[in-house]
Order: sequence, then structure tokens, then C-alpha cells
Amino acid sequence: MELGMIGLGRMGANMAQRLVRGGHRIKGFDFIADSRARAAQNGIEPAASLAELVGKLATPRALWLMVPAGAPVDETIANLLPLLAPGDVLIDGGNSMYKDTQRRARQLAERKIHYVDCGTSGGVWGLEEGYSLMIGGDAAAIEALTPIFAALAPAPDRGWGRVGPVGAGHYTKMVHNGIEYGMMQAYAEGFSILEHKQEFALDLARIGEIWRHGSVVRSWLLDLTADALKKNPAMEGIAPWVADSGEGRWTLADAIELGVPTPVIALSLLERLRSRDKDSFADKLLAAMRNQFGGHEMKKE
Amino acid sequence: MELGMIGLGRMGANMAQRLVRGGHRIKGFDFIADSRARAAQNGIEPAASLAELVGKLATPRALWLMVPAGAPVDETIANLLPLLAPGDVLIDGGNSMYKDTQRRARQLAERKIHYVDCGTSGGVWGLEEGYSLMIGGDAAAIEALTPIFAALAPAPDRGWGRVGPVGAGHYTKMVHNGIEYGMMQAYAEGFSILEHKQEFALDLARIGEIWRHGSVVRSWLLDLTADALKKNPAMEGIAPWVADSGEGRWTLADAIELGVPTPVIALSLLERLRSRDKDSFADKLLAAMRNQFGGHEMKKE
Repeated sequence: MELGMIGLGRMGANMAQRLVRGGHRIKGFDFIADSRARAAQNGIEPAASLAELVGKLATPRALWLMVPAGAPVDETIANLLPLLAPGDVLIDGGNSMYKDTQRRARQLAERKIHYVDCGTSGGVWGLEEGYSLMIGGDAAAIEALTPIFAALAPAPDRGWGRVGPVGAGHYTKMVHNGIEYGMMQAYAEGFSILEHKQEFALDLARIGEIWRHGSVVRSWLLDLTADALKKNPAMEGIAPWVADSGEGRWTLADAIELGVPTPVIALSLLERLRSRDKDSFADKLLAAMRNQFGGHEMKKE
Repeated sequence: MELGMIGLGRMGANMAQRLVRGGHRIKGFDFIADSRARAAQNGIEPAASLAELVGKLATPRALWLMVPAGAPVDETIANLLPLLAPGDVLIDGGNSMYKDTQRRARQLAERKIHYVDCGTSGGVWGLEEGYSLMIGGDAAAIEALTPIFAALAPAPDRGWGRVGPVGAGHYTKMVHNGIEYGMMQAYAEGFSILEHKQEFALDLARIGEIWRHGSVVRSWLLDLTADALKKNPAMEGIAPWVADSGEGRWTLADAIELGVPTPVIALSLLERLRSRDKDSFADKLLAAMRNQFGGHEMKKE
């Protein structure tokens, strides 16, 4: 079917390309001319503006938003609204906060435009392996988009599905990312122990490779981790600084709102903050306290 | 090749059976007559005593220990020692503490008996899917056992390997289990959030199934978790009580000895202890403190 992709960055461009490979007619818009040109090389019909993109699509239109979460989504919707018609469907495939999604859906419903949220997992590997899609919204609107989801997923019959009303897709993806934080931290800590156990001179890449086959901890994240350890066993040139992009914080905030204890997901987020706290005031104060009560020496800067 | 399996419980019996399927001549001993009889049905030649088992094997013998960690391993070795000859090899495939393994290896080395430690992952699924084997010990002794490891592993060329000197296999398996604790806890917490988000009435089994394909959190543990949620979505009849069998504790103790921060692995273990603390003295004391300083009401038993 025909779909307009808004945002041809790393994720949007790959998804559009996978849809083209699946036989769909994809028109795409991005602010950046280079991104449009690259997309055109991959069979995506480029549009230089939202108006041009919308003009290229027959009604009822399907438009897929793949822009950074937050203000860019609201701005794009504000710019799109005058261009759209009742019956059109807008899919937000990014990592939007689910409460924003619910608000946007209400706003668009007033204009009889369907809003569908699609939590999208798979990263840069999705182009080849397919994406895992957690979809929220009106069941009939989602049903009509079946060919699109089936082409993006790893296979037409798996890795995608409606999980609930609008917002439920982004909510599910948010929790997915919270779990991801915890899994990543568990692997990282385990390999760190192995790395420090110098008496055994362990080959971490080899151990990761052994674990990939038949072990209880085998996973796609382990596949990637073993590959990273093979390429760079000592993690040379990589700063011990870990970013977070919001979904872990939201997961924790929602868990607290619900009164659900999620200590490991919480701590996995805090460890990322810790990785960036290179001049820790708390550590200095702890050293000062030890000095106060025990006369313990403090390490000087 | 020929191998004696000592311990025909769930793990030992399955491993012996997989070796028989791989064309090996397996003789087996267990204290329990029923276990011997079941093993015999699967092509394992049973022996009613350690002496009978050792007598059935040509020298140099290979004997695989698959008995519970701790005293049972020491007792079995004590009983075996008078029966063995220099050049024999004893493999401990259980979850022994690596320092015990190092001590036993020294003890056996005095008698010129090789001691090989093999951390074994795969659980009850190993029979069909193969086991992930992390092996420590003398390189030549391990080399000589190649046909055994190749048959137990998911494929002859993957999922097994020597990771270092004796002790390194069990050490690696110990840390593997620490990682497993963290991963399990991350999934459990994530699904718990989803379960509590009543406004979306989420179908957890369906979400687990979607995540299995193409998502960043896909893993073998997720396959099992999704299956458990499909069979019993509300976890009916399962007490919220989680056991631990020692490896998490050892991982944490060793991390602390090494000075390696492993907060999530540590907390995953503590959450298991927490699950068994049904009459928490700490919780009562916290309630009492709130009452002391704020007059907050305490819930009565």
C-alpha cells in the first residue's frame, strides 16, 4: 500500500527501505536534503515539504511519524493538521511518552483523524531482521494498516500486534526499554567481574561466544555484546559514559505512580546517571564524613 | 568414547542420554535404583556402585560427576579415590564453588588424576538443544575429551570451550548465573508493571510473543517467560517465593572481594531473599518508626 514516512533519519530511512522491499509505495519527507537524496536512492519517492508529501498521497492517507520524541512530534502534527482530512491515519513510530500520545490522539480525534502509536524495537538491525512492533489504537485503523506492519515485522505473522487502545503501544515499548536497561546492566556487570578476575586471564569474547549457544543467558543482546567484545576486547577508546534517552526514567516514574517495586530497572537507570557523575559530590562528602568520624585519610585531587 | 556418569538425576540422566544419542558408550551410577532403571531404558549401562562403575571402564578412565554441589562432591571423590588410577580424568559438571574445585584439583593432582571443571548451562532443555559448556583445566586433558563436549554442546563446533585453568569453568558458570539473576529480575519487573497498568488491560502473553521476534529484549529466557505467561497468564497457584541455589551469593561475594561494583546482580539476589521474607521484621520496624516520629497509623496483623 501507499504510505508517507515523515523523518528519514537512521530509523525512518531503514523502515521506509524495508517497506519498499516489501513492495509498498513509500513517499518520504525529511528536513535534510541529504536524507531525502539517500532515501530516493533506496526507492523512496522524496518530498521537500510536508505539503508536498501529503499532496502525493491518495485519501485516506497513512502517514508514519519517525521523528525524535517530544516537541518535534507536536510541531510536525501542528504543521500537518491543516493538510489532513477526516479518515486519514497518523502513526507515531517513535519513542513518545504514552501520555503525550493519549493527548495527541484526543486532539486528532476532534478532526476525525486516527492516531495509532507503534512502539518500534529492533534498532539499526531492523532493516534486515525486521522490527518488533507494539501497536496501540483503534482496532479497525490498525487492521487497515496490516500490510505495513506485516512488512516491517520479522515475518507477516509474528513480531507485531495490537496491544490495546491508543497509548498502549508506546507504554509497552517504554517498559520494553526498561527491561532492556536491566538486561544490559546485568551483562555489563557479569563481564566486568570476569574482566577483573585476573588469576584466570579469561577471554571475554570467547566466553560470550560459548554462552551464545545453549546457555540460559543466550539472547540477541548477548550476540551483540559478544561481537563488541570480539572487535574490542579491552573496550579501548570508549569512555565509561552511558546516555539515557528518557524511556527508563518514564518506566520508573510510572512504576512509582502505580506503586510497583522495580528495583533492578530503577538501579539500572541510576547506574547510567552514575556513569556520568565523574566529579561526584556525594563521593567527596562520603570521604569527608569518614575523615570526620574516623580520621581516615582523604584522597586529594 | 567411553564415559562413566555419576549422578543420574534430572541433569545427569539427560546429559548421559544425549551422549548415548551421540554414539558414546555411557555407563552410569546413581544411589537410587529407579534412576538407574530409567537410565538403562535410555541406553545407559547401569552400575549399582561406584566400584562397579569404575570396574566397567577401561583405563585411562573418564568419569563425569553430576551430583549436588558441596559435600556430595567431596564424598564422591573420597569414595572414588581408592578406585582410580593415575591418568584417569574426573570432570565436575555441577555448580561447584570454584574455590572447592581448585582444592579438589590439588588433592587429585597428588594422585596424578586430572580434574576438569565444566560449568553446564541449558537446564532441562539441554537434552534436545544441547548444553553450553564452560570448561577449566589442563588443556591436553580437555582436548582428549573433545568428543564428549562436542556431543553435549548444541553443535560440535560451538557452545563449548576451554576458558582457563581448573576453576575457571565453574567461575565462568557462576558469573553466568549472576547475569541470569539480573536478566530474570528485569523481565519480571517489566511484566509486573504491565500487569499493574489496568487502564490498558494488556495481554502479557501476547506482548511477550511480540517481543520474541525482532525486539532488543528477545532471548531464550523471554521465550520461556512468554510460554509461562501463555499457559498461566495470572500466575495462578504459584507462590511469590523465589529460591536461590548459591551461585548468585558466590558471584556477589567474589565481586565484593574483587572490588567490582555489581549493583544489579546484587539486588537481584536480594530480591529473592526479599520474596521469602514474608514476616519482615524490617518492614514492621519501619512502620513503627513512622509511628514514632509522625504518629502515622500502623497496620495491625
